[in-house]
Amino acid sequence: MQETTPRPLAEALAHARDLAQAQIDTALGTYDGPVAEAMRYACGGGKGLRGFLVIESARLHGIAPGMAAPAAAAIEALHAYSLVHDDLPCMDDDDLRRGQPTVHKAFDEATAVLAGDALLTLAFKILASEDTHSDPAVRLRLIERLADASGANGMVGGQMIDMLQEASPRDLNTITRMQRLKTGALISYSVEAGAIIGGASVNARHALAGFAQDLGLAYQIADDLLDATGDQTVVGKTLRSDADAGKANFVTILGVEGARERVQLLAAQARQHLDFFRDRANILLQSVDYVLDRTR
Amino acid sequence: MQETTPRPLAEALAHARDLAQAQIDTALGTYDGPVAEAMRYACGGGKGLRGFLVIESARLHGIAPGMAAPAAAAIEALHAYSLVHDDLPCMDDDDLRRGQPTVHKAFDEATAVLAGDALLTLAFKILASEDTHSDPAVRLRLIERLADASGANGMVGGQMIDMLQEASPRDLNTITRMQRLKTGALISYSVEAGAIIGGASVNARHALAGFAQDLGLAYQIADDLLDATGDQTVVGKTLRSDADAGKANFVTILGVEGARERVQLLAAQARQHLDFFRDRANILLQSVDYVLDRTR
Repeated sequence: MQETTPRPLAEALAHARDLAQAQIDTALGTYDGPVAEAMRYACGGGKGLRGFLVIESARLHGIAPGMAAPAAAAIEALHAYSLVHDDLPCMDDDDLRRGQPTVHKAFDEATAVLAGDALLTLAFKILASEDTHSDPAVRLRLIERLADASGANGMVGGQMIDMLQEASPRDLNTITRMQRLKTGALISYSVEAGAIIGGASVNARHALAGFAQDLGLAYQIADDLLDATGDQTVVGKTLRSDADAGKANFVTILGVEGARERVQLLAAQARQHLDFFRDRANILLQSVDYVLDRTR
Repeated sequence: MQETTPRPLAEALAHARDLAQAQIDTALGTYDGPVAEAMRYACGGGKGLRGFLVIESARLHGIAPGMAAPAAAAIEALHAYSLVHDDLPCMDDDDLRRGQPTVHKAFDEATAVLAGDALLTLAFKILASEDTHSDPAVRLRLIERLADASGANGMVGGQMIDMLQEASPRDLNTITRMQRLKTGALISYSVEAGAIIGGASVNARHALAGFAQDLGLAYQIADDLLDATGDQTVVGKTLRSDADAGKANFVTILGVEGARERVQLLAAQARQHLDFFRDRANILLQSVDYVLDRTR
């Protein structure tokens, strides 16, 4: 997959990931013991898409990548927490994540719960820090919106819908709603965070919100395609988990071809939203191709 | 126990608990579904000591109880999350809390993990809200310090030490350090939060920090005494859990009489710190008696 990604995007992704990781390393610098080890472990090996979206969305408004890096780190820490808790035996019970044993396999369940809790806490600590933005009102806005995106009416709510409906039949509307919360809310927040940091206009925010919503849904359908058709050794996480659990997802409902068409449609919509920014949004535009690449 | 508590303290505790609970109810007002139900369930039935400490510490600096209620609610929500996660089967595996089945018993494990995550998230959302304090710098300070008190170098770190040492022998120093993090950090933060809201002087903060540290440790030793000598139907949570798990605690190391003496000593020290405030600290002084009452 990496090979087919155009070079500037690959570089921008890697650069964003390194910037966010350096901030996480600094934030974790004073922590030792098994919880800190598990937190570091959980933050490694990801693609860093969410941090990248923060940085590129902020760059659209003239903010240098380094200035948006703390917020990118906060979102990557929060995303890592959500993966650690979602992988727990009482949740999705996954053994493999980012090509490595999941945290409760590499450590134990108690350490995984605690490392997740501490990463969630760390995300808010980073956002509250002066390094994130000089304006206290901006930091508070970032904190409030992250709490909305990741709490009971956001990501956690989506995971709950997913757990509840594991056994029962699900239709397209329910799955779409579940994914908009479970995955979409944090992807939308990532783009919104860049806009908040950059002091974006109402129109720019609106365009970015539309872009993020379509990108997030395309990303999730691509993820279901990968689950159905991917190679586990390449993807680095347990595949066919939905099919094995008898869970409906976008592919079981739409079929492989139907799901691919839906991704194309959403990708086209996502690109249209970026027209607002003309060629300043070139790298964000490429992130749409990156999502499409996952479906091949 | 309630009957031996002097009336003004009982009233102040009940009033503080009602104020915090009303704020939590408002914050949860828009949430529905099983996660929200589990969050409400987890926030019920507590004594509200931490919210009371916020409110009384703020009152020392001229802040009306209602003005400190949002911060009190945030800390009670965070405390509730810590109980839900600590009670999980992979942690302390407790069935009873505040006289009711624990959240994973009343609901299920997945819902308990998610409700805890959402309560932790809610605590930061409440602190970021304008209702908590009109000055953004004060809200950010509250958020940063809560993240410190509850994260990997605070409460979560203490719980990890507790988990690690479950099977191995523990000495008094280790248990003291563990409890200063696991229970003490949040009790200290509660008092500090009131001081931050009230714009306390350096000397006042110092006195309150000393008070909170001694009170927190006394509280934990009293808790161990209750675990060893209490009546489960009165206390409302599983007792003898340390003894059953072969875990050392203050009572197994110091003995019942030794632990009672230690609580008395810490109580005397806690009172001395409050001398700084003269008779303005009367209600906080009574909270020391409240802790002592737990040991009888």
